[in-house]
Amino acid sequence: MKRATKPIAARVVLVRARNSLNIGAAARAMANFGMEDMAVVEPFEPMLRQARSAVHGADILEKAPVLTLEEAIADCNLVIGTASAHNRRQRQTMLTLPAMRAWLKRRLPGGGRVAVLFGSEKSGLTNADLFHCHALLRIPTRPDAPSMNLGQAVAVTAYELSRAALESSVTEPDEPMLEGRQVDELVEVGMRAMAKGQVNMHMPEATRRLRFRRGVMRWRLSRGDAAFLQGLLKRLA
Amino acid sequence: MKRATKPIAARVVLVRARNSLNIGAAARAMANFGMEDMAVVEPFEPMLRQARSAVHGADILEKAPVLTLEEAIADCNLVIGTASAHNRRQRQTMLTLPAMRAWLKRRLPGGGRVAVLFGSEKSGLTNADLFHCHALLRIPTRPDAPSMNLGQAVAVTAYELSRAALESSVTEPDEPMLEGRQVDELVEVGMRAMAKGQVNMHMPEATRRLRFRRGVMRWRLSRGDAAFLQGLLKRLA
Repeated sequence: MKRATKPIAARVVLVRARNSLNIGAAARAMANFGMEDMAVVEPFEPMLRQARSAVHGADILEKAPVLTLEEAIADCNLVIGTASAHNRRQRQTMLTLPAMRAWLKRRLPGGGRVAVLFGSEKSGLTNADLFHCHALLRIPTRPDAPSMNLGQAVAVTAYELSRAALESSVTEPDEPMLEGRQVDELVEVGMRAMAKGQVNMHMPEATRRLRFRRGVMRWRLSRGDAAFLQGLLKRLA
Repeated sequence: MKRATKPIAARVVLVRARNSLNIGAAARAMANFGMEDMAVVEPFEPMLRQARSAVHGADILEKAPVLTLEEAIADCNLVIGTASAHNRRQRQTMLTLPAMRAWLKRRLPGGGRVAVLFGSEKSGLTNADLFHCHALLRIPTRPDAPSMNLGQAVAVTAYELSRAALESSVTEPDEPMLEGRQVDELVEVGMRAMAKGQVNMHMPEATRRLRFRRGVMRWRLSRGDAAFLQGLLKRLA
């Protein structure tokens, strides 16, 4: 029997964010993927005000309280700190982003709340911040371009957290497709056009017919496509 | 027998990008996830120059040629256009981002090159652009916050394209863990401390011992943690 999964709520905590564009971009990315719980720790106030006045994500930013780190995580079951290249003390569990969701579900089988801390672009999270973390999160960027823009780091994290719930679909247009009889018709019209145009492609007629037929079947023609091609070939022949 | 998958190379094509910060952010996100093939169509030249002079992703931008759309996709097997909310003509295959990789692998089993077109933030891709596309790509953002910043859209797309190849790991610190004998020792020290402190928690001693033992085993203590706790309890008792 498959039990329903209890929900895991996530809060984004921006610690010492300095750039209003990045703060705004982080809020916007959260909104894009349905997250709305943000807290701000030790912001540079003028930049926060500026970010709040921007259009996108304004709602999330408007509601985001300015708290101490302790307050921001007080009601969270787990705290995850995003690690930059210099946070390399392997005294803590280290997750890469693609592994985060499964780890959260293992650690919070009954659901709960997780805080994900993002440090300032300049200095990341301090060791004092990391002492509050149950695990460190690493976005597995390339060694030659490791550092991510804050807005983009929040975007890929929000995407990954919601990914399993996002629509994963391929929708084909519902035009009526070619039927067997129409394949035969198109092939006949094509062969007549080739005869008329003296196109022999250096192969016997039977081989040409076979090749053309195989193509027509592979080309995923709609009925409309086939009618168009037949009309063209008839005109030419 | 499992055959090795042939590689699919991806090119990012920015069509009529207007904002230098976004162009730079797109290049930076590509670098973060190991993509380096970018082309620029009908840019606003001063903005492109400005983006090229920025630090991050400069290498990719420096190499990105300014081309017509036809030139930018001339050597690509597939062309995918990112669709905004107003591109809703369902005459083309529509993919959501989480489904893109699997679709590409089905369509290009022998490998190949795909161009992913990103339109300007303001107007997206035109219908003329979309005529060149084999499929439209939709990043499944929330209906109440559908529109993504160009840099962030490129970031989540680059992340998704490389996701299957990214490191997915949980690394635990390799501290030596508690062994059975040490569990017994810690429980004994704990029980002595409870006796000394007259802690009875309204339950028989055997139950208290059981509960404490169960906790010690669940707490994932390292040997160092256990030594610390034992020291503390002995001191108190």
